[in-house]
Formats: sequence, structure tokens, C-alpha cells
Amino acid sequence: MELNTLLSSIKNTNGKFAEEAQNRLDSLTKPQGSMGRLEEFAKQLVAITENQMPVLDKKVVFTFAGDHGVAEEGVSAFPKEVTPQMVMNFINGGAGINVLARHAGAEVVVVDIGVDYDFAGAGLKSSSTFVSSKIVSGTKNMRKGPAMTRDEAVKCIQVGIGLADEYAKKGYKIFGTGEMGIANTTPSSAITAVLTGKSVEDITGRGTGINDDAWKNKVQVIKDSIAANKPDKNDPVDVLSKIGGAEIAGIAGLIIGAAANKTPVVIDGFISTAGALIAYLIEPKTRDYMFAAHMSQEVGHKSILEKIGLRPVLDLDMRLGEGTGAALAMLIIEGGLKIYKEMATFAEAAVAGKK
Amino acid sequence: MELNTLLSSIKNTNGKFAEEAQNRLDSLTKPQGSMGRLEEFAKQLVAITENQMPVLDKKVVFTFAGDHGVAEEGVSAFPKEVTPQMVMNFINGGAGINVLARHAGAEVVVVDIGVDYDFAGAGLKSSSTFVSSKIVSGTKNMRKGPAMTRDEAVKCIQVGIGLADEYAKKGYKIFGTGEMGIANTTPSSAITAVLTGKSVEDITGRGTGINDDAWKNKVQVIKDSIAANKPDKNDPVDVLSKIGGAEIAGIAGLIIGAAANKTPVVIDGFISTAGALIAYLIEPKTRDYMFAAHMSQEVGHKSILEKIGLRPVLDLDMRLGEGTGAALAMLIIEGGLKIYKEMATFAEAAVAGKK
Repeated sequence: MELNTLLSSIKNTNGKFAEEAQNRLDSLTKPQGSMGRLEEFAKQLVAITENQMPVLDKKVVFTFAGDHGVAEEGVSAFPKEVTPQMVMNFINGGAGINVLARHAGAEVVVVDIGVDYDFAGAGLKSSSTFVSSKIVSGTKNMRKGPAMTRDEAVKCIQVGIGLADEYAKKGYKIFGTGEMGIANTTPSSAITAVLTGKSVEDITGRGTGINDDAWKNKVQVIKDSIAANKPDKNDPVDVLSKIGGAEIAGIAGLIIGAAANKTPVVIDGFISTAGALIAYLIEPKTRDYMFAAHMSQEVGHKSILEKIGLRPVLDLDMRLGEGTGAALAMLIIEGGLKIYKEMATFAEAAVAGKK
Repeated sequence: MELNTLLSSIKNTNGKFAEEAQNRLDSLTKPQGSMGRLEEFAKQLVAITENQMPVLDKKVVFTFAGDHGVAEEGVSAFPKEVTPQMVMNFINGGAGINVLARHAGAEVVVVDIGVDYDFAGAGLKSSSTFVSSKIVSGTKNMRKGPAMTRDEAVKCIQVGIGLADEYAKKGYKIFGTGEMGIANTTPSSAITAVLTGKSVEDITGRGTGINDDAWKNKVQVIKDSIAANKPDKNDPVDVLSKIGGAEIAGIAGLIIGAAANKTPVVIDGFISTAGALIAYLIEPKTRDYMFAAHMSQEVGHKSILEKIGLRPVLDLDMRLGEGTGAALAMLIIEGGLKIYKEMATFAEAAVAGKK
């Protein structure tokens, strides 16, 4: 589907569904509103799916992987080869996202959207857990020029949309976002600075764990990248291509695709939320389909959440990415749905109501 | 066992176990510390159980039920008969705690420790899910005198200790606390005011949902109860008996018993944490065995958590009680343990470390 046609098909969720869900919640054997945000999650799921009894039996977290030319500027504590090594770790089931996705009953789909490594040459082909959709072999160093062309960024978005379509069609009922890409807090911070108007210092964190000097260098690299590319803050795709990354674009696409498919999508941490901000600025109605998984320890995250208007489900000082927060938050969101679906009403349980 | 002998058997957890657990956490394929509080939960479980590979296969939430004489002072939005009605709802599996315990893979054990209703007369006998350990048939109206005698309060504590012993012996690996008792935010607020030194106004909330006038009445009832009983703030059992409740005492006992059995215990919301504060003041080492499930919307909760020195796992605007927050938090704590146990190390996954 043409991107613009798809975007115009995205609608706000229908408040009537949330209202009916609230009526049911208020008939359950508990003081009204006493399950707090769990009630809110249930209402949002009903409104998104337009189904009074939503089902979350099939869950999937998409972990988009991409490399970043800007890694050569010394912005990360880890060497670049960790990106493909972690992709192998995801496939072998040993990474944090594998553990927490198993815990949440979710599948993990690893998407090579921009890794600078030849997985086909290494014998790895598309499978149920590995998707080969490489648009770039790593982005270019954004300190010296655009990370990607506009065409590449759009293609990455379309990869995400395509996955959303495919997995919605396969019957998956909730999506999670995740990513892997050494240096990817650098483009995420750059995007955050440009699109929220905050200073680079205020929204740049320590990523995988850099020291003070490396942090100062990272801030300078981000400032230089913005100065070199002059991204247009009124054009999210321009920002995404010039100072973004392939996995960030894939996540933005997945979210757009989720909204078009009336499927809830749980946004992981800082990098995923940078992707969500791009999706939101492309089409603000996508927000209705988003759940913010958690508050990352990465300092810029709060600013993007506020910009979109999302309140995170969890706050556990996590900062790993991969989709770990999204997997964990799915369990809480599902808890809210079960409260809504499984609790007895005052009438069913013969419990007296409020005096 | 004599209470004092039991108390003297409670030890602080051994920091060496947490240290060894941290070494393993730092060898896993993630930046050090990047799983945030999930790492902390895993370390605490290792230290509590003195086991490098703890298992949480059998979980149980104890929902202690009791009535309160002070209910006749119009402090609750719900009539008193809701306490036994909700006990039946728990047994039939239709309450919030049943739903979330199923979600967390935990069993629910409902304990009649002080309900003003004859369940035996109604045909209900002790079973795997219902424990008949009635110490009082509701407390007395504390506005007019002590809620319980000191002897009754100690007996309620011993019920909790006995359950902890029994379920530890049966192989249960983690306990959760919960409660049901119309009007029980009133004694919880009274306990909080006396033991934290905060003003009654600052720590009194709206319980199941009372209006402004009823709230003002509730504050006055609490002030009158404290004035009438003059509980000794240096004697937690005196406070518990005069202005407490049977279920609060049972929870305090369960926590003491959990610590004595080196078993982690997840404290639910405001009322449970009032019980935890009593346990903590009786024996401060019990804190090492506690997890605070969530931050309740009930306004006094924060003050007790601070007094004990606990940071809650979740913050979801919940205020139902029953153990609902404890059940949900178990899922997050278990996620932390799985990260610790199941993730691949850098060596196993052949992933490069920090530069």
C-alpha cells in the first residue's frame, strides 16, 4: 500500500468502546477505579481492538538490529562487532530479551534491517525468528553527512509496516518493539534534541556505560551531527534519515503498521521511543495504539515520553533495550485485561455494593 | 516455638551471597547494571535463600480477613457484611486476587483470622484455600477502647507465623501478603500516624472511596481512637492490639515467620505494609526478607514504606488490597530471577566485552 494511503487509514480509537469497558469494570467486585492503571490498560485494549473481550494469546517482540557509522566517533563503550554477535545471541535464545519474552509468553523476531555484517554469508537465512530485511549495511557517519538517504529511511519504515501487516494477519494480538545497535543512543539523542527542542546535554545519557570524557565527546558528536545535517524539525522523515538509524526507522514503521492494523504495540525504552516519536509526528493518531513499557534510566527518555504524552507502565531503572521492557510490560498489561475479563461482578458474587 | 526464641533466630541476610550473585550478573551479555532493579531482586532472592540458583516454582498469597468494630463509626463506603461476602468470592475464585494470582502462577490461601461471621455454621471448613483460624469475631470499636487485648494480638501474630512455617515446610518458595476487612484502612492509618509521627490528616486516605465529609469523620475517629487508647509507640504490639486489626497482626506474623524460614515475602499495599511496619519494629532484620509490591494510591502508604526503607516494585495507582499488588509484583521479581539464571554469559555467547 502507498504510505500516504496507509496513513490516512489510521483512525483514533473509538471512545464508545472504552466507555462500555468502563461500565463493565465498574460492575466488578471492587471499589470503582481501585485497580488503577490496570483498568486503563484494559479499556485501551478494548478500544484498540474494537472487541469487548480482547484476546492476547499470541504476542511478539520485534528486535530490529542496525549498525551506525557514528560508532567510529567513539560514542559507545562497546565495539561495533557486538551488534551481529548479539543478533546471534538473540537467535540462540541467550539474551535478556529471550529470557523476558519467554517469561511473558511472547515470541522474539530479530530483524536485520541495517547490520554491517553478512548473515547470509555466515549461513543465516530468514526464519521464524530471524528476518533478513537489510536496507543498509550500517548507516553512514552522521557527523560527516546524512546517516541515510530519504529513500532508505522510507524503505526501513516500510519494512516495519510490512512486518506489522504480516504478523497481524498471522493472528498475533500484541506487538512489542525492541532494538540492538551499538551506538544507537547517539542518533536517538540527536532525534530527541531536534524534535523536543531540549539541549543536547539535557537529553544525552551514558548508553551502555561511558565515562565523563566519552560523554562529553558524545555530546559534541551529536551537536556536530545536527549542525552538519540541519534536519528539518517539521519533517520527521528528514530527521530520521539524516540523524537517525535503520532500526529506529523500522520501529517507527512497525508502530504505524500496528495502528493501521488496530493492534496494540508496546514501546520499549529510549531508542524505541525515539522511533515512536517519529511515528507520532508522521501520524499523531498512532498514539492511541501505543503503550509505553517503562521509564528508562537513559536520561532523554522522559522528554520523548512527555512529548508524545505517554506514561510508562514500569519504572525499574532498566536501560538494556532489545525489547526487554516491552516484554515485561506485556505481563502487566495482560494482568489488566484479565482483571477486566475474569473478575466476578457484584451480582454474580452476591456482594453488597457501596452504601 | 516461643515468640522470643523465634525472633532471636532471625538473621540479616548474608552480603556474600549478594556479592557472588552480582559477579554472575556482571558476566551476562548486557552492560553492567543495565537490568536495573531486576538485578537487585535476583540478588536479594539469592541472599535470602542462601542459594545461588533459587527456585520460585511454588508461590502463595495469604489473604487475611478480619472485621473491625470501628466500621460502626461510618468510616467506610461499604457495609460490613462485604467482608464475609468477599471471603466467599475469594473461595469461588472471582475476586481480583484470584485473577492476578492465577496470572502469576500463585495459589491463594484465604485466612479467617477475625471475621464477624460463622463460616463453620455456613458449612465452610478449613481446606487448602480456606484456613479457619479465627482469633476474634471482629475487633472492638477502637474509638471506645482497645481493638483487641494484647493476648489476642499475639495469637494473631502466631497464626501468621504458623502459616509461614507450614507453607515453607510444604515447599512454597515465595509468600505474598493480602487482606480483606471493611474499614481496615482506618486502623492502618492510626498505626501509621502513631508509628511514623505524621499527622492523621497527612496519612488518612479515602479507602474504598469515601466523600469529603466521610473523610473528615474518618480523621476524627482515628484521632479519637488514638486519644482513647494512648498506644505506646515504643511497643509495636501495644499499638497493634489497641488500634490495629486481626488481619494486620496476621500479616505481621506471616512476615516474621517468612524471615525465620528464610523465605522472601512480597508485601502488598497500605494495610499489608502497616503489618510489615509492625513486624519491622518487632524485629528490624525482617526487612531483608521483604519486597514492597507497589505504591498504593492510599496516601499513607508512602510514609510507611519510607519508615521501613522499602522501594516499591510497581506504581500503578492500585488501591484494592487483597494481595493483588503482591501477585503482580511476583511476576516482575521472578523476571529478575530468570534474567539472573537464564541469560548467556559473554563467554558462552562469544560476545565482545566493553572496550
